Amino acid sequence: MTHIISDLPIGPTDIEAAARTVAPFAVRTPLLSPPVLNERIGTRVFLKPEMLQRTGSFKFRGAFNKLSSIPQEQRGGGVVAFSSGNHAQGVAAAAKILNMRATIVMPKDAPASKRERTKAFGAEVVLYDRHREDREQIARDIAGPRGATLVKPYDDPHVIAGQGTAGREIAEDMAGLGLAPDVVVAPASGGGLIAGVATAVKARFPRATLIVAEPEGFDDHGRSLVAGRREAHGAGGGRTICDALMALTPGEITFAINRRLLSHGVTATDEEVGAAVAFAFRELKLVVEPGGAVGLAALLAGRIDTRDKNVVIVLSGGNVDADLYAKLVA
Amino acid sequence: MTHIISDLPIGPTDIEAAARTVAPFAVRTPLLSPPVLNERIGTRVFLKPEMLQRTGSFKFRGAFNKLSSIPQEQRGGGVVAFSSGNHAQGVAAAAKILNMRATIVMPKDAPASKRERTKAFGAEVVLYDRHREDREQIARDIAGPRGATLVKPYDDPHVIAGQGTAGREIAEDMAGLGLAPDVVVAPASGGGLIAGVATAVKARFPRATLIVAEPEGFDDHGRSLVAGRREAHGAGGGRTICDALMALTPGEITFAINRRLLSHGVTATDEEVGAAVAFAFRELKLVVEPGGAVGLAALLAGRIDTRDKNVVIVLSGGNVDADLYAKLVA
Repeated sequence: MTHIISDLPIGPTDIEAAARTVAPFAVRTPLLSPPVLNERIGTRVFLKPEMLQRTGSFKFRGAFNKLSSIPQEQRGGGVVAFSSGNHAQGVAAAAKILNMRATIVMPKDAPASKRERTKAFGAEVVLYDRHREDREQIARDIAGPRGATLVKPYDDPHVIAGQGTAGREIAEDMAGLGLAPDVVVAPASGGGLIAGVATAVKARFPRATLIVAEPEGFDDHGRSLVAGRREAHGAGGGRTICDALMALTPGEITFAINRRLLSHGVTATDEEVGAAVAFAFRELKLVVEPGGAVGLAALLAGRIDTRDKNVVIVLSGGNVDADLYAKLVA
Repeated sequence: MTHIISDLPIGPTDIEAAARTVAPFAVRTPLLSPPVLNERIGTRVFLKPEMLQRTGSFKFRGAFNKLSSIPQEQRGGGVVAFSSGNHAQGVAAAAKILNMRATIVMPKDAPASKRERTKAFGAEVVLYDRHREDREQIARDIAGPRGATLVKPYDDPHVIAGQGTAGREIAEDMAGLGLAPDVVVAPASGGGLIAGVATAVKARFPRATLIVAEPEGFDDHGRSLVAGRREAHGAGGGRTICDALMALTPGEITFAINRRLLSHGVTATDEEVGAAVAFAFRELKLVVEPGGAVGLAALLAGRIDTRDKNVVIVLSGGNVDADLYAKLVA
C-alpha cells in the first residue's frame, strides 16, 4: 500500500489476513477519548484500551493468529511458549479455543495473578529461575520430544501481524472520525506490538510519528533506534515494576521493522508509571498494569510533544496483582 | 413512538432532545461484550460502562441536560444540589462547562474521593449530617437568597431524560448489531437512571424486560413494584457498601415511569457486590464502584434469568475510594 514498507518482514496484507483470522474471537477494543485526559493534556488524546482484550492484554491477538497458522497435521503436538505472563495467557486462551495442548514456561517471580490465570485457561505451567536458567532451552527441551510448536512472544511474523490488528483498528477508527493520528505511542518489551501497530498505522497514515515507550533503564528500543542496530538496555540485573517490559534487546524481526517505522523512544520512571496506573484508576476507571501504562506515564510526565496533535496511546494490558495495585492507587 | 409510554412524564422525544444537548460534552460510552463474561454466563452479555462517562458516572448526562434547560436569565443565580457524590460531580462538571456557580450539599460520610472530586470541578461543598439534618432544607436555604436553581438528583424530567441518553445508546448499539436486548438491568437509588433507560429502550424494543437492581435491604424499588405504589426500603438506619444507592423511596416522577415500564427487582448482598467489584477488576479491567456493580452482582449470583437471552447490564459508575477498593479486590 505504501512504498516505505514494501520490503519489510510483514506488510498491511498480513495484518488484513490476521484481522480476518482473529475477528471471531478477539475483542474489537474501542478507541476512547476521555475528556479528563484531553483537558489535562490540552489536545485530543485517544486511548486503545487493550486491557479490555480477551485475556486482559493485546497478546491474545498475536497468539491466536500464530496458532491458527499451524497446519492441522502439526496441531496434535500442541504448543510451548515462554513468557512472563501476558503472552502465556494469550497462548493458553488461543490453544483452548483451538483445542490444542499448551505448556507455558514462566519465571518463578512472575506475578501470581498471571500464573494463576494461565493455569485457568487450561495450560500446563513450568516455572524457571530467571537468573539461572535459560527459558528458551527449557521450552525447546519440552517441545522437541512432543513435536510441539514453539510460539515465540514477539519474533515471529504471524505474532507481529496479529498484534498489528490493534493498529489497524486504531487507523480505522481515527479515519472514521475524520482524523489523522499524528502521534502513536506503544510500549515495547521485544517490540512485537509496536512493530505490528506501526505497520498498520503507517500503511494508512504514512506521516504518523510512532514512539516506543519503555521503563527507565530498560530502554533497549530507544537505544537501538539511536544506534541503528539492536542494543541491550543498561539495567543489568535491575528491576522495574513493569514486569511485562524486561526483554534485554529488541527482537531481530521486530527491529527490522521498528528501525524503519519508529521515530524515537521515550521512558518513564517506576514512580511515573505508578502515578499513571493511579491516574487510570482514579480518572479513567481502567485497570492498567504497570507495563501497560508506560506510554500514558510518559504522556502525563510531559515527555511527548503533543502541541496541536492527535495523540494515540496504547494501554497494552491490565493484568496486575491486587496487592501491587492497591499500593499504586493508594 | 409506542403507545405504552405516550402518557408518561417523559417520552422518547425528550431523550432525543437530551441526546442532542449532551452530545458535545458527554462521552458516548461503548457497549462492551467481554468474552469472559459471555462464557461464564453462557449467553450474550453486554455492559454499558458508565464509569467511562465524564465525572466517572452516568450522572453527568442528567445534570448537563438539566442545567442546559435553565433559561439564560436565571443562570446567574447558579445551581444548588444535594448528593452523596456522583450527582454532585455531575452537577459540578456541568456547571463548570456552562460557566455557572455550583454549591453541593453532601453528607459528611460520603466517600472522600467523591467530596474531593466535586471540589476539583470548582464547586463549593457544604457538608451535613445524614442522620440529623434535612439536606433538602439546607439546599433550599442556600438556593433561596441567591435565586439559585435547585437541581434534584432524580425527580426531574430533564434529569431523567438526560440519563435516558445512556439507554438510547444501548438501543442504538444493539440495533446496530442486529440484536434485541431481551433483558436490561440497571441499578436504582431514586430511579432516574432506570426510568430514562427504560423509556429509551422500550421505545425501540417494546418487548425488552427491564429489571431494577438494588442492594439487599435497600430494595425500595423492588417492593414498590410489587405493591404498585411507592414504598420505603426496610433497612432503617442500616448501611450498605453501595453508598450511591441509599435513597429511602423511589422518586414520584421516576416511579410514575418505572411502575409502568419495569418488570421487577433483584437484589445483591454487600458480599456479592464486593465479589462483582473484584470480578470487574480481575477479569473485565474496569473500575466499578459498589453501587455501580449491583446489577453485575445479581447476574453473577444467578439471580437473573439469562437463558437464550441478550442481557444488558448498566455499570453506573466507578467513583470508589482507593482503600475500600483495595479491600474488595484483595
